[in-house]
Amino acid sequence: MTEFRFARRSAILGKSVFDHAPGTISLNSGAAYPPCLPDVVREAGEAVGPLREEAMQYAPLMGLDDLRDEICSFVADDRVKATRENVLVTYGSKSAFDLALRTFCEAGDTVIVTRPTYMTALHIMRTHNVRFLDIGQDEEGFCADELEHKLLRLENNGEPMPKLLFDVPDFHNPTGITTSMARRKQMLELAQRYNFVICEDDPYRRIRFEGEVIPSIKSMDVTGHVISLGTVSKILAPGLRVGWAIGDPGVVRRMAMQKADGGSNAFAQRIVVQLMRSNKMAHHIDEMIHHMRIHRDVMIDAFTRHLPETVIRKPQGGYFLWAELPEGTDAERLVELGIDEGVEVSSGRLSFPNDDPGHFIRMAYSFVTADEIKDGIARLGVAWRKLQSQARAA
Amino acid sequence: MTEFRFARRSAILGKSVFDHAPGTISLNSGAAYPPCLPDVVREAGEAVGPLREEAMQYAPLMGLDDLRDEICSFVADDRVKATRENVLVTYGSKSAFDLALRTFCEAGDTVIVTRPTYMTALHIMRTHNVRFLDIGQDEEGFCADELEHKLLRLENNGEPMPKLLFDVPDFHNPTGITTSMARRKQMLELAQRYNFVICEDDPYRRIRFEGEVIPSIKSMDVTGHVISLGTVSKILAPGLRVGWAIGDPGVVRRMAMQKADGGSNAFAQRIVVQLMRSNKMAHHIDEMIHHMRIHRDVMIDAFTRHLPETVIRKPQGGYFLWAELPEGTDAERLVELGIDEGVEVSSGRLSFPNDDPGHFIRMAYSFVTADEIKDGIARLGVAWRKLQSQARAA
Repeated sequence: MTEFRFARRSAILGKSVFDHAPGTISLNSGAAYPPCLPDVVREAGEAVGPLREEAMQYAPLMGLDDLRDEICSFVADDRVKATRENVLVTYGSKSAFDLALRTFCEAGDTVIVTRPTYMTALHIMRTHNVRFLDIGQDEEGFCADELEHKLLRLENNGEPMPKLLFDVPDFHNPTGITTSMARRKQMLELAQRYNFVICEDDPYRRIRFEGEVIPSIKSMDVTGHVISLGTVSKILAPGLRVGWAIGDPGVVRRMAMQKADGGSNAFAQRIVVQLMRSNKMAHHIDEMIHHMRIHRDVMIDAFTRHLPETVIRKPQGGYFLWAELPEGTDAERLVELGIDEGVEVSSGRLSFPNDDPGHFIRMAYSFVTADEIKDGIARLGVAWRKLQSQARAA
Repeated sequence: MTEFRFARRSAILGKSVFDHAPGTISLNSGAAYPPCLPDVVREAGEAVGPLREEAMQYAPLMGLDDLRDEICSFVADDRVKATRENVLVTYGSKSAFDLALRTFCEAGDTVIVTRPTYMTALHIMRTHNVRFLDIGQDEEGFCADELEHKLLRLENNGEPMPKLLFDVPDFHNPTGITTSMARRKQMLELAQRYNFVICEDDPYRRIRFEGEVIPSIKSMDVTGHVISLGTVSKILAPGLRVGWAIGDPGVVRRMAMQKADGGSNAFAQRIVVQLMRSNKMAHHIDEMIHHMRIHRDVMIDAFTRHLPETVIRKPQGGYFLWAELPEGTDAERLVELGIDEGVEVSSGRLSFPNDDPGHFIRMAYSFVTADEIKDGIARLGVAWRKLQSQARAA
């Protein structure tokens, strides 16, 4: 048996949340709602038919010019001022974030994240062997005061200063919280003062059910300290694998040089161009909002009925529900018992950068039907009561 | 003006060889021959029509099972024994190589490469901040004796031993040399003895014009020391961005965990499955061989006429011609003069891991027509005579 000499980062193992266990109700992944997957037959036909030469050849490293222009129009609705030179096309916002990490961070560098934060972003950061400066959240979102105090202390101690901040300000993954305008301004001021870059990951921004739209941090950025990460995964289809980074031209060019694939898939890029140019994408987003609002309400209702002892917060948009179980609950054990009952949810442990409090779980309401959500949470309720009776017996 | 705090690897700048200067004849990139780009209208229609749910959703991290099975059948023709568990689907062999680097190498680790070697692989390795142990080539290919001596010396000096070897044994990029059976066996023995992993990059293997097929190194591997990197870029279409790694199941699973994109594009994967299952791919490969043989012959003929002072070697397959100019020639200057004349070729500098001898250039005959090759090499001949007269005048 060969003893391979792996790099340190290869100690990170796990399974993909998109590899669902057969026969279980999957409340553990932010995959797309299958009945809403878009019909792109016409757009695909155009891409590989009349536009075959573009679709089947290597694409420009920065992405198709037409797509970069469409992305500029798309984010203009968020008052982000961008021209083609600001836009890099990637394989979803995850790969855009990976390129940002490659561009800015060495092993051992520090990244600012919320506790908890997006589990896959954490996984990607761990492959870069970075350390985490974790910051809490309250009702207003990112605790910028806590960050300021921690940065001051690092500065006073002469310690290395963080280079990057990762956050999901709209409908945060996993907590669902949206960061307030005041906090966003504070975050940007700190980025400018301490010269770190904010990776503003905004996949759910357009999936808002209610409440007022808050300007993105990128829309207030005039110094290039913000890289806006976007994707069509949550508003069109994850299978297209099309996302982007919007930032300072010199920064996104450097990020492009970290790509290891000779340019992203032109074929999928062209399909997205055609969808963005027609009203199909706007229509699709409306449909997603309609279904996701129902899913959220059904899940909250079922939760209140079957796990009344948990604390949940109603998100105004996005794909996720975050639940705090009574302190001392073994969330990992609940996840296992849930699988026995035929439902998959995520342990909060996956979302905590440093210490896991141990009593949180994350549910996604995006992938399954409303009936499956009802059924899944009922099953989780069974697991929850089993866990309680086991705890009493112990 | 913001002074960004980039990582070391971000010092690597450059341009993509696939971003062609308008109005010039591009002999600098291994892009696909446009008249040969496959018609995948039917396959794309199937993928986004009846198979929409698969195509538009996140794909399994390891790739579609159907594609992994088809890849096993494909490499079985090369006597590589693989089952689904050995196969990881990636965005082309470049991204497979990047995942191997992430899996095995820390910054400062040493990778064994030929001098010269594939320019984009070098670029990717440089983003990992690795060092290079460079090994020569002769008529039989990879100089395994030289490697053995160097490994012995490192071992005797107690220096860190290399973890990875990268090579293109069939129709090497850039030199076109194919490594002999004896040398391949020696490489594998050294990998086993010194416990490093061979990344055998074989994009051109099926594009053979003449001569006998030599077994791949992977086909002789029973210890898992070889990762075979494959792609459809050179046999179907680069735009599909579908490639793979074949290796030990534990190794490819670890490589999958280094992906930062939530699974590769299912859509393009399904198209490749359909093409592999029909006889379309085999037919397409025959067509490619037909055209590339003509292109090679035309290029060699033009070279002999217009740059008779250069030494070239006739490759038995692949996409590239490598030329040694008389010693002391400034190849970089020739490349610049070529652009003035309307032809783009690559300076050998891009292919050398450590020291650049300075008098080599690489030409690709894949992307342009036979007439353009004739014209392009004639233009390079004009540049060459200008360079000679400038040298005489100096």
